[in-house]
Amino acid sequence: MVVIMKPDASPEDIQYVVRRSHSLGLKTHLSRQDARTFIGLVGDLRGLDPGVLAGLRGVERVQALTKPFRLASLEFRSAPTIVRIRDVEIGGAAVVTMAGPCSVETEAQILETARGVRDAGARLFRGGAFKPRSSPYSFQGLAEAGLELLARARDETGLPIVTEVLASEQVPLLSRYTDALQIGTRNMQNYALLHAVGESSMPVLLKRGMMCTIEELLLSAEYILSHGNPNVILCERGIRTFETYTRNTLDINAVPALKELTHLPVVVDPSHATGKSSLVKAASRASVAAGADGLLVEVHPDPENAWSDGFQSLTLPEFADLIGEVKRVAAAVGRTA
Amino acid sequence: MVVIMKPDASPEDIQYVVRRSHSLGLKTHLSRQDARTFIGLVGDLRGLDPGVLAGLRGVERVQALTKPFRLASLEFRSAPTIVRIRDVEIGGAAVVTMAGPCSVETEAQILETARGVRDAGARLFRGGAFKPRSSPYSFQGLAEAGLELLARARDETGLPIVTEVLASEQVPLLSRYTDALQIGTRNMQNYALLHAVGESSMPVLLKRGMMCTIEELLLSAEYILSHGNPNVILCERGIRTFETYTRNTLDINAVPALKELTHLPVVVDPSHATGKSSLVKAASRASVAAGADGLLVEVHPDPENAWSDGFQSLTLPEFADLIGEVKRVAAAVGRTA
Amino acid sequence: MVVIMKPDASPEDIQYVVRRSHSLGLKTHLSRQDARTFIGLVGDLRGLDPGVLAGLRGVERVQALTKPFRLASLEFRSAPTIVRIRDVEIGGAAVVTMAGPCSVETEAQILETARGVRDAGARLFRGGAFKPRSSPYSFQGLAEAGLELLARARDETGLPIVTEVLASEQVPLLSRYTDALQIGTRNMQNYALLHAVGESSMPVLLKRGMMCTIEELLLSAEYILSHGNPNVILCERGIRTFETYTRNTLDINAVPALKELTHLPVVVDPSHATGKSSLVKAASRASVAAGADGLLVEVHPDPENAWSDGFQSLTLPEFADLIGEVKRVAAAVGRTA
Amino acid sequence: MVVIMKPDASPEDIQYVVRRSHSLGLKTHLSRQDARTFIGLVGDLRGLDPGVLAGLRGVERVQALTKPFRLASLEFRSAPTIVRIRDVEIGGAAVVTMAGPCSVETEAQILETARGVRDAGARLFRGGAFKPRSSPYSFQGLAEAGLELLARARDETGLPIVTEVLASEQVPLLSRYTDALQIGTRNMQNYALLHAVGESSMPVLLKRGMMCTIEELLLSAEYILSHGNPNVILCERGIRTFETYTRNTLDINAVPALKELTHLPVVVDPSHATGKSSLVKAASRASVAAGADGLLVEVHPDPENAWSDGFQSLTLPEFADLIGEVKRVAAAVGRTA
Repeated sequence: MVVIMKPDASPEDIQYVVRRSHSLGLKTHLSRQDARTFIGLVGDLRGLDPGVLAGLRGVERVQALTKPFRLASLEFRSAPTIVRIRDVEIGGAAVVTMAGPCSVETEAQILETARGVRDAGARLFRGGAFKPRSSPYSFQGLAEAGLELLARARDETGLPIVTEVLASEQVPLLSRYTDALQIGTRNMQNYALLHAVGESSMPVLLKRGMMCTIEELLLSAEYILSHGNPNVILCERGIRTFETYTRNTLDINAVPALKELTHLPVVVDPSHATGKSSLVKAASRASVAAGADGLLVEVHPDPENAWSDGFQSLTLPEFADLIGEVKRVAAAVGRTA
Repeated sequence: MVVIMKPDASPEDIQYVVRRSHSLGLKTHLSRQDARTFIGLVGDLRGLDPGVLAGLRGVERVQALTKPFRLASLEFRSAPTIVRIRDVEIGGAAVVTMAGPCSVETEAQILETARGVRDAGARLFRGGAFKPRSSPYSFQGLAEAGLELLARARDETGLPIVTEVLASEQVPLLSRYTDALQIGTRNMQNYALLHAVGESSMPVLLKRGMMCTIEELLLSAEYILSHGNPNVILCERGIRTFETYTRNTLDINAVPALKELTHLPVVVDPSHATGKSSLVKAASRASVAAGADGLLVEVHPDPENAWSDGFQSLTLPEFADLIGEVKRVAAAVGRTA
Repeated sequence: MVVIMKPDASPEDIQYVVRRSHSLGLKTHLSRQDARTFIGLVGDLRGLDPGVLAGLRGVERVQALTKPFRLASLEFRSAPTIVRIRDVEIGGAAVVTMAGPCSVETEAQILETARGVRDAGARLFRGGAFKPRSSPYSFQGLAEAGLELLARARDETGLPIVTEVLASEQVPLLSRYTDALQIGTRNMQNYALLHAVGESSMPVLLKRGMMCTIEELLLSAEYILSHGNPNVILCERGIRTFETYTRNTLDINAVPALKELTHLPVVVDPSHATGKSSLVKAASRASVAAGADGLLVEVHPDPENAWSDGFQSLTLPEFADLIGEVKRVAAAVGRTA
Repeated sequence: MVVIMKPDASPEDIQYVVRRSHSLGLKTHLSRQDARTFIGLVGDLRGLDPGVLAGLRGVERVQALTKPFRLASLEFRSAPTIVRIRDVEIGGAAVVTMAGPCSVETEAQILETARGVRDAGARLFRGGAFKPRSSPYSFQGLAEAGLELLARARDETGLPIVTEVLASEQVPLLSRYTDALQIGTRNMQNYALLHAVGESSMPVLLKRGMMCTIEELLLSAEYILSHGNPNVILCERGIRTFETYTRNTLDINAVPALKELTHLPVVVDPSHATGKSSLVKAASRASVAAGADGLLVEVHPDPENAWSDGFQSLTLPEFADLIGEVKRVAAAVGRTA
């Protein structure tokens, strides 16, 4: 960390910053350039809030030079982490596809989709029983009845289940029914929830906040890791930008960027990242080509009659095509699918 | 709502959309332009998810024409809502300033700040006992001990208290100590939390998500209102943009925009919206000039030694100056302060 | 186009909008929903500025329903356009790679790079002789001396040349030396320049503005097409977002999105879209997997000593690796490279 | 500037960076923290492109610590610059309002507007004769005929004229007719144009690019200043964000931020920054309260029949109201209007 003093900072201002840094257990290192003094800080900076020094008189700016996360970093662990959801490995040689409808609607819909995606090649089944919706007047999910349908789908098909958790108090209930917990984009910085899943031992699929940086995603993973749960899968699902043709902007750069920062597996949700079923296949191929360890795809046997997100859901035949295309791209980059 | 068909949609596609709309209880109205058919929908569209129709074959896009919120709208209630926090009215003729430190630290700090901001002219006292922090290694707040200090400050100064709630299960605890609940920017779309405060009768200060639209802010307010709690104050606190000189971008347009959309009071947090104490006064003056009903300002008796956010906190003398400037601007726009 | 009237619009307001629309040669079509009147407009809307009606009394909003570009659209021409730069076809079955340094520096650098990229498999050579730089104190390019070096590289290697044009008056000079003109991201909406290249017959590589929408990119292409030049290649080069880990955010969605909107070829610049040489290969594989017709890659024989953009340039051996990887991905999606 | 080496950088890598820095005339200064080496650079960094060092082996990042602009900075000149347009001073005690229509349409429209805004209190007249439009099919302006009408308005009213210049070759023509040149938002980084106006002696109203940072705005001002023209007025006109309710987001923070960075006058265009006439007054009051030296307001005698931008134009009576409100706010912040 470097403290950059203003050109008009007095010697007393500089000495005060130095003393304050020493009182925080840090060593300091002064240099000058143009009219400015720079105070380099050396020591354990992990818990240091830059704001503590940024408010001192004469300080122009405090610049962090190193990463604020540790357990999630490649420096902490250089070998890729493989997260196991039942018998499925995420982060290994195989690119894993998780698929299913946005919402759990009916038994027939769930069983037909689960069988269909398994037959096409999916390895996990996803579906929402508790739905976060922008409007209080939209369908909010079937709740526990939905979890029961998901469990029945697992019994039928053998596919492990992943579903979204919306609040800490739901963790025990969901853990009885499901094989992995999803943290949705609106909850990436819901620290009470991160804390709760960090204390569970369930695999966690952590979706990037639509407004959050790559570094903030890793800090949210660090919350879970630092509470004792090492089973975190990161999910890029599109960020919010000025572009309105697509629902979100798939930040494809984030895939190789995360790979050079962390040992955790990285998957992509091309359905939310595009918001248009017509773009999902291309986004899926791109994600695997960029190095993603898996995909999370919305599939519905009848998107035209889906209760939510039909516009971005694939039909079962479209999903089967997608799996075929993804396999070829995976092979081209030295992976299986 | 208008369904825009693709140029190559077949007559069967169009008839299917029409039948589906009728089955949802809506009337339809067809017109053509260039090669396209447009299907206007008439009826109760409030609970209709556009995705239900957007996924139908031959549909290019579904365009909403009216606002998705109702209880929060000026059409529902044209007179301004005044929210009372104990004896303080937000949304009336007076511009109300709420002030206090980012974090509750010590008894001495809290009492000195509370007395200082009261003497300068603040009407409410704010301070965080539970702190949402990006890093798990940063200070997370004093929790219940912090609430006790806030209550002591109220006893001493008579200023009502507002503090942040991070999870549904904290609502009863906080309601015992505080006079208003703050929903922070990272929780604006934490629907479990919105639901919980909606079932309470406490006044709620709802901060805009840093990457949420004005419409989404009003939809989150609608969650609270629709669960029975009419006491919602909206807070613009800056949005995330590409600009990095400031911590956030104060969306000053949001103030008059909200005033033409809703009857709820609107306050501005110039401290987070700028992230630099040197810009807080100018942002405060601008907010009041734009029509804000109040301000939420970070003040610390010794920002240089604050445990968090010192770089954006004002000293007590700076805050007294701010109050003086705000009074003059308030008078210029026909308000008191 | 639909004119949405306010709930309190008077019958006279509505009649005025109708008469104004008729005077513009449009037919109107009224319907009501909730308390609002909607006036659908039918006729030649291409040149109609929505602002003409949006300012009328009682109007809440005017909503465009169809695309504002025509010559660039798939409705105008459904077969893919193939742009020829000398003997190289962009937009056909082969994925074409254009490569070279950010800036033309010296004869040795240019010739070594041109030979190197040709041997690795590039089909076009790129390099900047006129450089747009944020700071007036940065290197601005070698100007005509740089063009001469580019022409020498073409003589040596047979690779056609593409280079950036910064102003209308440079078009004749550049046309003497180069085989295609590049419009840079900062000039995507420099209409004087679009007009000038539209009147030339040179192939144009039009880079997307870093904060321009997909639709605005197509409107800028429409400027060139409507002035008589059909040889436009679109280039996605990353957009500006809140993410700071990468220089820009590669909008990979734009590749399939453009393919469903236009017949023009689409290439990707992974060097600017990431701003980090370590991410360029992954971004290149992703682009080809998403359907790009080509790549524009910064290569330098010695990035460590490059005069500009060394941090995002590949070495010649890295570029050779990239070509190998891209070939495998291209084959996986049914293309050659 | 600090070069941050990767944890695995070798001693040879570090030595190479040091030698390269010395060869650029810089002194170096090494320190270590955690596993990393930091190389501080001291010397004349103004023309140094960080990319020159960022590409060296073993380098993780190069961090600039000081501002890249000089002539525009408060360090270069601490007294506020007052720009004179004929007899009107921008940057002095008085807040100056410039007003007029988006486009020059007819003699009657121009003269009525010019008289009206003068009588209401405007000090300069604005209007577009050359219009940059996203679509090639929209009205492009009256060109020289429009300039003649503007000159006639000046003769009639005594108000100096400001109008937009779109290309370098227009500078001589416009300089014959107008009193100040406006650089529009899409041309803020059109360096050929900045160069041309920098060599002229005309006052320049430089609008911030809708996608450009405060620092980039100052660098574009630096282009003009460094070519010899000191008469630059900066204009905040709204930036592009994810918010769609307004046309742009007025970055009100930019006003005090610019005031702490530069001596140049700062004005605000509330018409483009909101894109809605209903929000223009509030945005104007806010701008003056924040410290703006002037306003640039779109006014039309009959916005309902304006050829462009009617939806964001004020009528003459609305503009007179605005002037009244602005005067009161100006007085409240110690200015005249």
